[in-house]
Amino acid sequence: MKAIGFEKTFKLEEGNLFQTYDLELGEPTKRELLINVQSISVNPVDTKQRVTVVDNAPRVLGFDSVGKVEAVGPEVEMFKEGDIVFYSGSPNQYGSNATSQLIDERLVAKAPSNLKAEQAASLPLTGLTASETLFDVFGISSRPEDNEGKTLLIINGAGGVGSIATQIAKAYGLTVITTASRSETVDWSKQMGADIVLNHKEDLKQQFEAHNLEGVDYVFCTFNTDMYYDTMIELVKPRGHIATIVAFQEAQDLNALKSKSISFTHEFMFTRPLHQTRDMVKHHEYLKDISEKVEQGIYQPTTTKIVNGLTPESLFEAHQLLESNTMIGKLVINLN
Amino acid sequence: MKAIGFEKTFKLEEGNLFQTYDLELGEPTKRELLINVQSISVNPVDTKQRVTVVDNAPRVLGFDSVGKVEAVGPEVEMFKEGDIVFYSGSPNQYGSNATSQLIDERLVAKAPSNLKAEQAASLPLTGLTASETLFDVFGISSRPEDNEGKTLLIINGAGGVGSIATQIAKAYGLTVITTASRSETVDWSKQMGADIVLNHKEDLKQQFEAHNLEGVDYVFCTFNTDMYYDTMIELVKPRGHIATIVAFQEAQDLNALKSKSISFTHEFMFTRPLHQTRDMVKHHEYLKDISEKVEQGIYQPTTTKIVNGLTPESLFEAHQLLESNTMIGKLVINLN
Repeated sequence: MKAIGFEKTFKLEEGNLFQTYDLELGEPTKRELLINVQSISVNPVDTKQRVTVVDNAPRVLGFDSVGKVEAVGPEVEMFKEGDIVFYSGSPNQYGSNATSQLIDERLVAKAPSNLKAEQAASLPLTGLTASETLFDVFGISSRPEDNEGKTLLIINGAGGVGSIATQIAKAYGLTVITTASRSETVDWSKQMGADIVLNHKEDLKQQFEAHNLEGVDYVFCTFNTDMYYDTMIELVKPRGHIATIVAFQEAQDLNALKSKSISFTHEFMFTRPLHQTRDMVKHHEYLKDISEKVEQGIYQPTTTKIVNGLTPESLFEAHQLLESNTMIGKLVINLN
Repeated sequence: MKAIGFEKTFKLEEGNLFQTYDLELGEPTKRELLINVQSISVNPVDTKQRVTVVDNAPRVLGFDSVGKVEAVGPEVEMFKEGDIVFYSGSPNQYGSNATSQLIDERLVAKAPSNLKAEQAASLPLTGLTASETLFDVFGISSRPEDNEGKTLLIINGAGGVGSIATQIAKAYGLTVITTASRSETVDWSKQMGADIVLNHKEDLKQQFEAHNLEGVDYVFCTFNTDMYYDTMIELVKPRGHIATIVAFQEAQDLNALKSKSISFTHEFMFTRPLHQTRDMVKHHEYLKDISEKVEQGIYQPTTTKIVNGLTPESLFEAHQLLESNTMIGKLVINLN
């Protein structure tokens, strides 16, 4: 297959070190699917992995794909040739920035049948991250009626993860408060279903008081955890739960969690595939639920920018845009 | 009532600054009970609170009591005069180191009818801490069959909290691995029901391998969290949960939780009463369950040392013993 990769970690200031490679994938074995990739999306994790040591060059990133099943391994049970599927994958294998990819079927689901590939490609990584945070970390119920009255604060509601997390949380009965600061991001977050959008450039505690919010059950941080650490602890209820997907820059005082018996989780969507956990099939299940809810008109895709043609240049420009921290929703690249 | 208290924080090296006071308690209001205290126990938290700033002198500690209900407030629903009850309480009021105490009924349950006061007094604080950690923090099921195959590691299994946590976890279907190092503490922990007792003076990872343990679902730290932080992260399974009841001395790297998406909780049994949470009655429910399981012969009390007579001297000696970090089980003081 043809893939866009690189030889060693690089910063954008060093120039565009992405190159096109011709790589051999081999046949799918065991539970693997061979996918003909149609659309991919670019995530903040791509920009982070770009600066993580390369063990086996070339490194091919890409953690969102919509494509067609071309061949199936001998133990595959859930898919057949010709299925249109979507998935995120794992950083310990060739990613989706390529014309073809091998992927374990337990990480895959059928793509929503009512969406173009360029729309569905916005959903896997962000949808899995949001689903794990809500169901595995916060332990919300799969029955919306059980979650009534529960409140979730999402720091940065308009990003890729915030956008789908808002929709899933609303569909499952939670009250969702998000933060944003520009009028476009405020509008977008409301469109995703946020009940209240606060301005993260102003004091959040005061805004909580103005909205008669005494505290939230859950806080989900998708931006600058160091900056929000103390604030999140202040805003969460006693025995509440905070999760982040953004690594810390500094060591933190864990005793700050004590007075309220707060739980803190560093959510990492690649934990299951990286550690090959026995419940890896959860990724299939979460994606299946997302796909069905999109088909039912409950969730909407979060694609906001579409680029045609996956090249070293288009991928470099996508990384530049992601690192500017101004993205609303998701950037998708169509392969052809 | 007569109470043992002190005017300002003190270290044991400064000598015995406990004194006897005659204090006015007043009538029970709202959901309060007036208790005639029979037995109390001394916990590590007493020694920590002794060195925490005194806002209103005298400070009366004591967070375990068995006693008789002498009078009830006008809104009390669950108890009547003459009931023998047990409870832990809250640090924002006069504690149980006194002949009488006022306590909210939602924090109280009937003491096990088959135990002497000096036995039952070992259970409330440690039992509540263990129950909150298992049910609220780790989210284990109240149906033992759901918890089969789940594994819990308790760092320091022979202390007060470790002793009852082992019993509760076993009764609810978990496999329990504890740590200890002296032959007395190893024997005690096994007596509490531990399936495996590891030596915390030797490499725990190697001992896990020797026992074919690939990792545990939950780790409960009851001793020196700083020392065990990295080890606990190494021993817990992907997406596992670590809880501690011991405050940190140093800031910690929360990114260490990321690869396995680990959750970390600083459990603090006083969160509910201090913050007067709406679900404060959970303390009543947990104590009721403990009391019933003691009556059914499923749990045994953890009293190992009984002192007769609550005086400034006996309390000072109890604090000395607690601070020596050598206690197995619990130290109880009978008031008369």
